[in-house]
Amino acid sequence: MQSDVAEDNSERVTLADVAEEAGVSLSTISKVLNGRSDVAGATRERVEELLRERGYMRRGGRAQPKAELIELVFHELDSIWSMELINGVESVAKEHGLSVVLTVSGSRHSPDPDWIEGVMRRRPVGVVLVFSDLAPEYRERLRARAIPFVIVDPAGDPSPDAPSVGSANWSGGLIATRHLIELGHTRIAAITGPEDMMCSLARLDGFRSAMNSAGLHIDPDWIQFGDFHAAGGRDRANTILAGPERPTAIFAGSDLQALGVLDAARASGLRVPEDLSIVGYDDIPLARWVTPPLTTVHQPLRRMGEEAARLVIRLSEETMESTPRMDLATSLVVRDSTAPPA
Amino acid sequence: MQSDVAEDNSERVTLADVAEEAGVSLSTISKVLNGRSDVAGATRERVEELLRERGYMRRGGRAQPKAELIELVFHELDSIWSMELINGVESVAKEHGLSVVLTVSGSRHSPDPDWIEGVMRRRPVGVVLVFSDLAPEYRERLRARAIPFVIVDPAGDPSPDAPSVGSANWSGGLIATRHLIELGHTRIAAITGPEDMMCSLARLDGFRSAMNSAGLHIDPDWIQFGDFHAAGGRDRANTILAGPERPTAIFAGSDLQALGVLDAARASGLRVPEDLSIVGYDDIPLARWVTPPLTTVHQPLRRMGEEAARLVIRLSEETMESTPRMDLATSLVVRDSTAPPA
Repeated sequence: MQSDVAEDNSERVTLADVAEEAGVSLSTISKVLNGRSDVAGATRERVEELLRERGYMRRGGRAQPKAELIELVFHELDSIWSMELINGVESVAKEHGLSVVLTVSGSRHSPDPDWIEGVMRRRPVGVVLVFSDLAPEYRERLRARAIPFVIVDPAGDPSPDAPSVGSANWSGGLIATRHLIELGHTRIAAITGPEDMMCSLARLDGFRSAMNSAGLHIDPDWIQFGDFHAAGGRDRANTILAGPERPTAIFAGSDLQALGVLDAARASGLRVPEDLSIVGYDDIPLARWVTPPLTTVHQPLRRMGEEAARLVIRLSEETMESTPRMDLATSLVVRDSTAPPA
Repeated sequence: MQSDVAEDNSERVTLADVAEEAGVSLSTISKVLNGRSDVAGATRERVEELLRERGYMRRGGRAQPKAELIELVFHELDSIWSMELINGVESVAKEHGLSVVLTVSGSRHSPDPDWIEGVMRRRPVGVVLVFSDLAPEYRERLRARAIPFVIVDPAGDPSPDAPSVGSANWSGGLIATRHLIELGHTRIAAITGPEDMMCSLARLDGFRSAMNSAGLHIDPDWIQFGDFHAAGGRDRANTILAGPERPTAIFAGSDLQALGVLDAARASGLRVPEDLSIVGYDDIPLARWVTPPLTTVHQPLRRMGEEAARLVIRLSEETMESTPRMDLATSLVVRDSTAPPA
């Protein structure tokens, strides 16, 4: 073990110092450095703090051989746009001779304990998390091993010390709504994602700003939070369309939701776009192939995956002074699901 | 190295025998057993053959520690159904405490040399290939290391010694076509996948059998080979619909193709299903959400991924007498894109 972590005399001395100061054996120090789980939490924390103070963690982490792997974690793989992100991460990984380990965490909060143990064993170059966060103790364990992580499109409010890649959600909501206003719509509803996701809130705020700038009233019943899936989009649209007054346009939080809205419109005997205009979000590859082809906000998903992979590789090679945050631009793609109100 | 491959005296004797017989050093034998690339091809082959004859390869391979990984190789990730297969492989891997390494090969023939070198270094439990094959020399190197592989839905004609998981393509073509015939259609066209893929041929043969059994004529111009993508489906449908006589129904080789056919129908002013019935293939999650919702052949993609992962794990634990081949059943899902001809 010791040969893994101590490369020259000065480092060996530091490790022995740390062991003495922490009141633990050298073998315990070694376990902490190797990310083993058989060390009590309080002991690990004390040792890690001392190691960081001595400037050891970074050097120690770097000195250890890394596997040629990038870890990619999704909270779920059932939305189509996951594919675009995977393609982006995979292509940059390949350029750098790295392979991608894919994990589906099943949770937006943090992957489960098995996952972090696996990562500690696999020693990847870095971790990219999509729509998922990391528990503080996992962040610590990754930092202790100098394994950087990058979050793509953070759910909720990312802590300021988490490097992340996103897209311009507020602008996306704004341009989608402006497009509808320019077509002459004044009664516009919005269906967005979960209320605890920052991207949902940012898109909705963009919607509000466009409406307010145009002096248009927002009916509170016409703002619906949901998930990003087709069935949710249909159910929310049914609620909105069942009201006493009907909007002439709906801004959906995702293309899948927009498909659900299309389904609800069809079930209500409404023609799209003649009776109801619909704008989606994401511009998934299929958006161009549905009937009618969707007007939508293009999110550069593949590029987001690429940038996240590039960032995590860069973080594995150098220390960056500030926490990087990158937002890629969104743009409107006008197709056939929007038209002036009848 | 030697301690890796030799577990008791009898094996040590065998290895020395093999080295002598092959006229190479023990270190070369060790390199071959460890899948290293710095051994000349001819030497490797001679050594591997001798090792197999002595019954050494299997035991030697087993004795080496395997990483807790399954390799999953796609030739491309741009069709939606890839997601379903990934989910299937991932969930079974997780049950077994394994992680999934995802590679996009970019080729239906075999991943590139970097990939096999990476696999040799990573020592996975097994390899699952989707719509992709393995060059004979890669198969040999995997066998030499006792790393099993399973092919999902083989492209072309899989060699009889490749374990594989597929679905009942011929039956799928048959039930799709029978459905159209039962609705009263007699002028039916078929768009299928590439001519060199077994699944395309099997589906088309199912189509032919249903037509022949019903005594219906097949217009040679109404059979089109293509790719499985939407744009290809649209282009082939345009060719078919531009002919002097028009079919009243088209059987498409994938749901994406069917979306392309829908687009072509719309461009020709044809209503679906009133003027043209369309049957898709795959039953991707979106098939239910397009307009009109697609009648399609359900392919159990997620289950295919699960079975492939289970099979490769089983092959890593035991030697199976015969080469396993599993075909999962397909079934027809009737939605709104098919109706009796006008």
